[in-house]
Amino acid sequence: MDPGGLRVNGKRLRNGLELMAEIGATPGGGVQRLTLSPEDKQARGLLVSWLEETGLDVTVDEMGNIFGRRHGKDDNLPPVMAGSHADSQPKGGRFDGILGVMGALEVMRTLVEHHVTTERPVVLVDWTNEEGSRFAPAMMASGVWAGKLERDWAWQRTDANGLVFGEELERIGYKGALPCASWPFHAYYELHIEQGPLLEAEGKTIGVPKGILCLHWYDIYVDGEANQVGPTPMEGRSDALVAAAEMILKVRELPAKMGGNMVATVGEIQNYPNSRNIIPDLVHFTVDIRSWDDELALRSWDDVEADFEAIATRHGCPLRVEERWRVQHNEFAPHLVGQVQATAEALGYSTLPMVSGAGHDASYAAMVGPTAMIFVPSIEGRSHVEVEDTTWEDCEAGANVLLSCVLQSAAER
Amino acid sequence: MDPGGLRVNGKRLRNGLELMAEIGATPGGGVQRLTLSPEDKQARGLLVSWLEETGLDVTVDEMGNIFGRRHGKDDNLPPVMAGSHADSQPKGGRFDGILGVMGALEVMRTLVEHHVTTERPVVLVDWTNEEGSRFAPAMMASGVWAGKLERDWAWQRTDANGLVFGEELERIGYKGALPCASWPFHAYYELHIEQGPLLEAEGKTIGVPKGILCLHWYDIYVDGEANQVGPTPMEGRSDALVAAAEMILKVRELPAKMGGNMVATVGEIQNYPNSRNIIPDLVHFTVDIRSWDDELALRSWDDVEADFEAIATRHGCPLRVEERWRVQHNEFAPHLVGQVQATAEALGYSTLPMVSGAGHDASYAAMVGPTAMIFVPSIEGRSHVEVEDTTWEDCEAGANVLLSCVLQSAAER
Repeated sequence: MDPGGLRVNGKRLRNGLELMAEIGATPGGGVQRLTLSPEDKQARGLLVSWLEETGLDVTVDEMGNIFGRRHGKDDNLPPVMAGSHADSQPKGGRFDGILGVMGALEVMRTLVEHHVTTERPVVLVDWTNEEGSRFAPAMMASGVWAGKLERDWAWQRTDANGLVFGEELERIGYKGALPCASWPFHAYYELHIEQGPLLEAEGKTIGVPKGILCLHWYDIYVDGEANQVGPTPMEGRSDALVAAAEMILKVRELPAKMGGNMVATVGEIQNYPNSRNIIPDLVHFTVDIRSWDDELALRSWDDVEADFEAIATRHGCPLRVEERWRVQHNEFAPHLVGQVQATAEALGYSTLPMVSGAGHDASYAAMVGPTAMIFVPSIEGRSHVEVEDTTWEDCEAGANVLLSCVLQSAAER
Repeated sequence: MDPGGLRVNGKRLRNGLELMAEIGATPGGGVQRLTLSPEDKQARGLLVSWLEETGLDVTVDEMGNIFGRRHGKDDNLPPVMAGSHADSQPKGGRFDGILGVMGALEVMRTLVEHHVTTERPVVLVDWTNEEGSRFAPAMMASGVWAGKLERDWAWQRTDANGLVFGEELERIGYKGALPCASWPFHAYYELHIEQGPLLEAEGKTIGVPKGILCLHWYDIYVDGEANQVGPTPMEGRSDALVAAAEMILKVRELPAKMGGNMVATVGEIQNYPNSRNIIPDLVHFTVDIRSWDDELALRSWDDVEADFEAIATRHGCPLRVEERWRVQHNEFAPHLVGQVQATAEALGYSTLPMVSGAGHDASYAAMVGPTAMIFVPSIEGRSHVEVEDTTWEDCEAGANVLLSCVLQSAAER
């Protein structure tokens, strides 16, 4: 391993991130750059201008993914890739996604500035619609690129106003000619904020995820019996919201009960008729279970579903369960994970082996070729909110690890 | 007490109720006759035509309350009044409100048919906007009539589309010239469905409420901390929905814990940002507490509020509580309650002394003069839903009790 003496320019990285943060800036200090919105278009335009200034070959594929390629000594070798996404959550933060794109740009600028020619070509990528906030599902364009989602199906996705993904992509001028299909690559690195509190809590600078947790999504529907609350005695009520409240607490207690490493969350609930003087007769809520251990997640679901059934029976509230999505845990390439760890330490940064609780474009990349991620601390673990923050020093540290990892992989024949 | 030999015509009562149920009929077998809607206007038109056919003096006041007056031997004596309301909940039932109006009409028709001249005048009333579903608050026009709500304030109430009560009242042609202000009355009787399961459960025909429960409404706001669910460990989460779920169960357990006769309900909940992969950072829910014992209701609130505070502290979820509405319990005139009971028994109907858990126009009438209600069974206790139902025999029984009570009170000098 040879990290070399090369370092990124932390000031330039910060300056680029600050310019990007102006696009879609929110009063609360975050950004709102929804996929294919005018702000997304503006951010893409700025990024492309920077890629061209840096002398990269810029291409856009038919899903709007933007690639910036730098020649290597042998352009026939599979490239090394690095990137992330420029879109954001509604009222999201200034680092989620864009840090990995600007980090990769900073790597390119550093290579150019120092006249470094790598053995392999290096490709920067900005994936379209990682967030999935405007058009579901998340990680849509990396999914199509990896051959796991259908291009035509993705084009037909609609937002809450009925606007169609493919048409909006064309409208902002980013429906490219290049087919959206993967090519062999030697390594894919994604620099990203942790989006959790562990690095800060442990006082470490670089998180080294060995992969991404499995993800199970369920939709639960609980039926009750609507009645005027005043004249209906407590005895004999079938109150769907009371039954759902018991179920929500079972989900909260599940990880401690099962004893393994997992998280379980109810994020969404709808109550009907949702009137203060009518007993609720229908509640819908979601369950999100994540673990590194797919079997533990499945056992946990079976356990909590049995609890749900018992609660439903006790309250006289029939239950309907829909299994919405099940993704197995996704392991990154061990040799790249080891390289991220060793590189960070060689550069003098403290490290923390961990897992990623959130999905990333790296999830799909890992299905195509060797993939690893580099995490930097999220202040107070906050993410997907306007106060999301990471220190400039940590951004620079992450970009230095990215630079060194790219250099090493791009030197390998 | 002299119930006399007079009985209502059950077939005519049923026929009238069935004709009314056609106005705003819903596919599910209920009615939707929102206040001041085209259906409300149509129902009013039909009612007025029937009042005129029956030879009553029809007047409409400036809140749209419709009165049908029948002369007595001494028109200077305060009248006996009977009525209820013709508006309905959205997707409501065919009996709530309209039974008391059609029951009073059947009383009038019976008096006319049998050439009975009462000592006192008798006045039928159809109160505007009892339900409050389109324009809050409920029981609005009886509240203005009783001098408890301001006429001009009521006129300015708006519906969800911003339409103004006073303008809509004028548009449907029912903003009358008569000032909306109470006059002395000798007795007010309101026939109504029970809207609860007690009469059916006890196998009784006539419910005799001694009054209306107190009503306390609260709004609760619980703050949490929004974060991506995947990377955020269970430890240290401030999940507003989990905290709210614990609070909802405390409300459910409150009546059993306090040991008195009361009901406590959470009917409404809003969760934010309500996304399946973000930890909820704000939950709003409502609490509705009702009891005959005002002090018990207050003590219960203090008790559950202390539980809320403890739960909020344990979860790190700050709490905000708004006291929205507190109405004391409302006792009907004991001599009229006794008369309803004695009359029903003299007519051969089984009776059940009870309380009303729901508010009624009788609540405001009771603030003006001697008031009582007559309840008939709700099948399976269902109300405010399309399947709301009461047998025709029970409707007839209730109307017979109403007739006999009106006859007795109207004979008194």
